[in-house]
Amino acid sequence: MPSKIILDCDPGHDDAIALLLAHGSPEIELLAVTTVVGNQTLEKVTRNALSVAKVAGLTGVPFAAGCARPLVRPIEVAPDIHGDSGLDGPVLPEPELALDERHAVDLIIETVMAHEPGTVTLVPTGGLTNIALAARKEPRIVSRVKEVVLMGGGYHEGNWSATSEFNIIIDPEAAHIVFNESWPLTMVGLDLTHQALATPDVVERIRAIGTAPSRFVVELLEFFGQSYEEAQGFTSPPVHDPCAVARVIDPSVMTVRRAPLDVELSGTLTLGMTVADFRRPAPEDCTTSVAVELDHERFWSLIVDALERIGEP
Amino acid sequence: MPSKIILDCDPGHDDAIALLLAHGSPEIELLAVTTVVGNQTLEKVTRNALSVAKVAGLTGVPFAAGCARPLVRPIEVAPDIHGDSGLDGPVLPEPELALDERHAVDLIIETVMAHEPGTVTLVPTGGLTNIALAARKEPRIVSRVKEVVLMGGGYHEGNWSATSEFNIIIDPEAAHIVFNESWPLTMVGLDLTHQALATPDVVERIRAIGTAPSRFVVELLEFFGQSYEEAQGFTSPPVHDPCAVARVIDPSVMTVRRAPLDVELSGTLTLGMTVADFRRPAPEDCTTSVAVELDHERFWSLIVDALERIGEP
Amino acid sequence: MPSKIILDCDPGHDDAIALLLAHGSPEIELLAVTTVVGNQTLEKVTRNALSVAKVAGLTGVPFAAGCARPLVRPIEVAPDIHGDSGLDGPVLPEPELALDERHAVDLIIETVMAHEPGTVTLVPTGGLTNIALAARKEPRIVSRVKEVVLMGGGYHEGNWSATSEFNIIIDPEAAHIVFNESWPLTMVGLDLTHQALATPDVVERIRAIGTAPSRFVVELLEFFGQSYEEAQGFTSPPVHDPCAVARVIDPSVMTVRRAPLDVELSGTLTLGMTVADFRRPAPEDCTTSVAVELDHERFWSLIVDALERIGEP
Amino acid sequence: MPSKIILDCDPGHDDAIALLLAHGSPEIELLAVTTVVGNQTLEKVTRNALSVAKVAGLTGVPFAAGCARPLVRPIEVAPDIHGDSGLDGPVLPEPELALDERHAVDLIIETVMAHEPGTVTLVPTGGLTNIALAARKEPRIVSRVKEVVLMGGGYHEGNWSATSEFNIIIDPEAAHIVFNESWPLTMVGLDLTHQALATPDVVERIRAIGTAPSRFVVELLEFFGQSYEEAQGFTSPPVHDPCAVARVIDPSVMTVRRAPLDVELSGTLTLGMTVADFRRPAPEDCTTSVAVELDHERFWSLIVDALERIGEP
Ligand SMILES: [Ca+2]
Ligand SMILES: [Ca+2]
Ligand SMILES: [Ca+2]
Ligand SMILES: [Ca+2]
Repeated sequence: MPSKIILDCDPGHDDAIALLLAHGSPEIELLAVTTVVGNQTLEKVTRNALSVAKVAGLTGVPFAAGCARPLVRPIEVAPDIHGDSGLDGPVLPEPELALDERHAVDLIIETVMAHEPGTVTLVPTGGLTNIALAARKEPRIVSRVKEVVLMGGGYHEGNWSATSEFNIIIDPEAAHIVFNESWPLTMVGLDLTHQALATPDVVERIRAIGTAPSRFVVELLEFFGQSYEEAQGFTSPPVHDPCAVARVIDPSVMTVRRAPLDVELSGTLTLGMTVADFRRPAPEDCTTSVAVELDHERFWSLIVDALERIGEP
Repeated sequence: MPSKIILDCDPGHDDAIALLLAHGSPEIELLAVTTVVGNQTLEKVTRNALSVAKVAGLTGVPFAAGCARPLVRPIEVAPDIHGDSGLDGPVLPEPELALDERHAVDLIIETVMAHEPGTVTLVPTGGLTNIALAARKEPRIVSRVKEVVLMGGGYHEGNWSATSEFNIIIDPEAAHIVFNESWPLTMVGLDLTHQALATPDVVERIRAIGTAPSRFVVELLEFFGQSYEEAQGFTSPPVHDPCAVARVIDPSVMTVRRAPLDVELSGTLTLGMTVADFRRPAPEDCTTSVAVELDHERFWSLIVDALERIGEP
Repeated sequence: MPSKIILDCDPGHDDAIALLLAHGSPEIELLAVTTVVGNQTLEKVTRNALSVAKVAGLTGVPFAAGCARPLVRPIEVAPDIHGDSGLDGPVLPEPELALDERHAVDLIIETVMAHEPGTVTLVPTGGLTNIALAARKEPRIVSRVKEVVLMGGGYHEGNWSATSEFNIIIDPEAAHIVFNESWPLTMVGLDLTHQALATPDVVERIRAIGTAPSRFVVELLEFFGQSYEEAQGFTSPPVHDPCAVARVIDPSVMTVRRAPLDVELSGTLTLGMTVADFRRPAPEDCTTSVAVELDHERFWSLIVDALERIGEP
Repeated sequence: MPSKIILDCDPGHDDAIALLLAHGSPEIELLAVTTVVGNQTLEKVTRNALSVAKVAGLTGVPFAAGCARPLVRPIEVAPDIHGDSGLDGPVLPEPELALDERHAVDLIIETVMAHEPGTVTLVPTGGLTNIALAARKEPRIVSRVKEVVLMGGGYHEGNWSATSEFNIIIDPEAAHIVFNESWPLTMVGLDLTHQALATPDVVERIRAIGTAPSRFVVELLEFFGQSYEEAQGFTSPPVHDPCAVARVIDPSVMTVRRAPLDVELSGTLTLGMTVADFRRPAPEDCTTSVAVELDHERFWSLIVDALERIGEP
C-alpha cells in the first residue's frame, strides 16, 4: 500500500524535483500539496507549484496556498539560490490547476482528520509555518499523523549561518513548535542532503531520459548548480528536498539515528540551530531521528525511475 | 453608533466582568466572544465564558473556543489567582449557549472580513495566541481591523516577573506578532489596571444594585480580592480586563500616550516585557499607544451602569 | 569623619564636575581616582582626569589608568555627548600630576585592602570594567568595601536604548558582576539624574562664583547642554555623575528605595537594563537600592559650595 | 629550542597528566603554572597542582593561584568526574613548593612581558578566567604571546550540554574574550580529545614503566576511567588536557583545520558552544584553528616517554 503524504513546499528547484519524485513514485499517494513562503514569496512559490504540476501532468490533487510570512521573524527569501521567480532556469508553463479555496493550514488539518489515524505522513520541504499553525489550530492532528519527514536543519552543518539551515532559520519558532510535538519526526538535514549532489553523471542520466519533464529537471539542475557554485562554493548542487520524499518511498535509501532534537531560539550565533544530543543513546521515548548517510546511487535511481514513469504527460 | 468588538478572553474573574461590561453597555456591539488558554485551560475558560453568558442573559452572540496552548512555550495557568475552575467564588450556572462550531481563529477572521473595513475592534483580555494566529492565517484582517485594544503588559510594571505581565509572558511570541502588526494598538497594561482597584466602596456600590448578576460580580471580587492579597500583597484587587472594554466604551476614561512598543523575546530577566520607548516624542507613523492614567470614578460608574442595565436577566 | 572614596570615572563632562565636587567637599576624603574607557578612549579620559586635577588644584591623590576596553563587548564611546576629546568645551590645561604606575584595578584593590574594613566607598561614574575586574581578581575587597554608590542604569529610564543607560550597556557583563556581588550598592540611575538638570539659573549661580574652576564648569555645562539638546532633546542637560558623589556627601540629598536589582545580559531589546523588582517589599537580605527623588536645590548647593571652597587654586 | 609555555590549569586528572607531560618533555620549557577554579574550587586545584609538582619532582617553576570564580556565572565544579578533592584516586603527597605570591593574572602578564615577543605559548587546560583577565588587564600581552593552545570546546561535540564542553561553559564570557582576541589560537576540543582514550593497553604501557609517577598516573586513570564510565558512558576515559601540551611538543601529533571560531553567549540550548564556521575556506586573516584528528599512538608515546624521562624523582 502506498504511503499517503502531504507535501508542504516552497518551490524552489529542489521542491520541484521533490514533487516530481512524489508524483512519479508508486510508493507514494500524494494527498495534497501546500505552499508556504520561503525560497520566494507565497505568491511566487504557489504559482511555481502549479507550474510544476503542469509539467508533471499532475491533476486530481488539491493544491492550497498557506502562510505568506513566518510566525515571528521578517520574511527572508533566497533569490541568490533560486532566482527572482523562485524557480529560475526553465521556462515555466502556465498553470492549469486551480488552487483549492482552503487555506493550506485547513487543508492539512482536514486531510489528516479525514484519513485513518497513523496513515498520513507530512513531508515539509520549506519553512515550517504551515505545519506549526496546523498543530496549534487543531492539536488532534499531532497524534493522528503517522510521521513528519522534513527537509531542514542539520546537526553538524549549516548554510544560512555557521550552524543553521535556511528552512529552519527563516521561521525558527515554527520549527521549534514542530520539533517539540509528540509525533515521530525524521529530520533530513544538510548532513544528509549535502551528500545528494547532482554530479555531472547524474545530470547526464536525467538528460538521457529525453522527456519534457526530464529536460525541465536538467534545466533546474543547471541553474541550481550555478547558484550553489557562486553562493556557497559547491561544484555540484545539493538537491535537498527530494531526500525527504525518498525517505518515505524507501527508508533504506538513508541511515538515520534516533536522538533528542530541539531548535535554538535565542542564540546570537546559533539561532535556528537544530541541536541533536548524541552524548548518550537516545532515551526509549525519543521520537526524533536525524538522517545520517545517503545511498547516493539508490537515491538518484529513485528520481530517474520516477521521471521515466512520468514519461511525457 | 456603537463600537463593534470581538472579545477574546480567558475567564478569569476580570474577563467575566469585562464581558458583563461589554454586554451591558449600549456603546458596544458585541460581535463575538472567543476563548483562549490562559488563566485556566481552554476547556475551563470556555465553559466559564458560557456560564457568564448565562448569568448575563447574553444570547445571539457566537462564542467559539480557540487555542488550547501558547505558540511556543509550555502552558502556564494561574490557579493562585483564579482558583481551580478559573472562576472560583460564585456558583457557576450550567451554560445554555452552544459553542459556535468554528475555531476562534476562523470566527475572528470571518467576523472581521464580514464587516466594513475599519469597523471592528479586537479586545483581547487573555494571551494573544488566537489573535496572532488569525493575523498569520489571514493577513488581510490587519488592515481591516479598526484597532486592537488589549489588556496586557505594562511599561513600568510587571506581575509574573519583575518586568512582565501574565497575558504577555504566557505567549510572548504571540504578543510579539500582535504588537508588531500595523494595526492601531492600545496597550492597557498594569500601569493602568493597577489603578482599577476594587476598593471596598466600589464593592458596596455593586452590591447595592441587588441583582443576581451584581451579586455574581461581588462574589467574583471577593474571591479575587483574597487571591490578590495572598499572592501579590494587594489590599484591593486590580480589575484588569474591563479597563480595555471601558477604553472602547469611553476613551476619556483613561489617558494614553503614543509610543513605540515591542515585546522582548530573549531576555533572561525580561522575557515578555512590553518595551515602550519614551525617549523621544513618538514618530509620526507610530500606531501604538499605552494607557497611562485611569479616571477611577468614571471607570467604576461604567461597570455599575452596565450591571444596572443588565438588571435581572 | 569624612567618607573615604575611590572615584572610578571616564571624564566626561559630568565626571569632571563629580571630581570637583568630591575635591571641594570636606565630607569626602578622596583616596584615589581611577579611569576607565567609556565616554572616550582610556587615553583621552585619563588625560582629561589629570587636566581636571590641574584645574581643581588637586594633588596628593593617586590617579591610575584602568581598562582600555569592556570585558566582552566592543568599545563604544560617546562623542555625540562629550565631543572628540571626551571633555570638549573649555580649554584643557596641560596635566601636571603624574599617573600612578599601578593599574587602576590594583590601585583599587590595594587601597581597599590598606584601609579598615567598612571604610572605603567605591564611586563608579563610568562603565564598571575596573570594579568588576577588581572584584574578580581580589574577592576579599567585596566584604571590605563599605558601599558602592554608582551612577548608571535606571529602573524606568534609558538613554542608550529604550531601557538601558550608557554606563551599563557599554559593559553589561561588568555591571552584572558588580550588581550581583554582596556589597551594599546604591544605583543612582537616570530616574534620579534626569532630575539633576543644569537649568539656566543653576548655570548663573555657578558663573557668579567667578573663579577659574567655576568658569571651567560653566564652559562644560554650555557644551554639555548643547550636546544633550541635539542628541536627546533635553532643554537643560542632566548632570549625572555628581549625583553619586552627592549621595555620599549627604545621603538626604535624595531618597532611595531598597529593591532587588539585576542586569539583563541577553535581551534583544533590553540588553543592559537594570531590572529592579518592586512587586513586593524588598527582602530582609536585599543589599541594593535605587535612587528615586532628588532634592534639586540641595544638590546644586553642594556643587556651588564645593566650587566656592576650591576657590582659585 | 624548547617551546616556552605557561600552563594554566585546574587539576583535575587530565591536568595532572598534562603537567607531567610538560615537565618530562625536553621540547617544553615550563615558565609558570597557574591555577583557576574549574574541576574543583581554586583552593583544591591549587593544592592539587602543588601535589603533582611534588610527584613529578618539579621545582624552580613559579606556581600561582588565580581566579576563584568565573567572570559572570556562578561556580560550577565537576565532582562527578574528578571526585571531591578534584584529583581523587591516588594518595596525594603533601606539597613542598610554596606558591608564588603574585596573582596568576599578574604572573601570566609579567612572564609574557619579560620574554621576547612571540616566544611564549599559553596552554590553558581549564576555564579561561585567568587568561581573559590577563588580556583585559594588560592588552599588550595579546600581540606578544606566540599562540594560545587550549583544551576546551568542540565544534561537533559537547559534554556538559549537547553542544558545549565544561571548560567553556563554566565561564563562557571568559572564553568569548579569549577566542575573540587577535592572538593565534588552536582549540583542542572534544572532537580531538575524545580520540585520546586511555585504553587498557595504554594503561598497561604506563604501568609497565614501574616508577612512582607512573603508578600515580595509573591510579589517576583508573579513577578517571570509572568516573567517565558512570557519568558519560565511556568505556575508556578521554584524557583531554595533555592533548594541548602534546600539540606544542609535536604539532604533527594532530591535524588541525583553520576556521573562524566564536563562543555562543546567549543560546538557551547552546550556551558556551564553540561555533566553527566550515562553510567556506577560512579567510586569509583567520587566526583560529581547531584540532581534528589525533595520532593516537604518537600521543601516548609522548606521555610514556615523558614519564620515563621523569623516572623516580
Ligand atoms: Ca524547499
Ligand atoms: Ca484575562
Ligand atoms: Ca561618567
Ligand atoms: Ca582541566
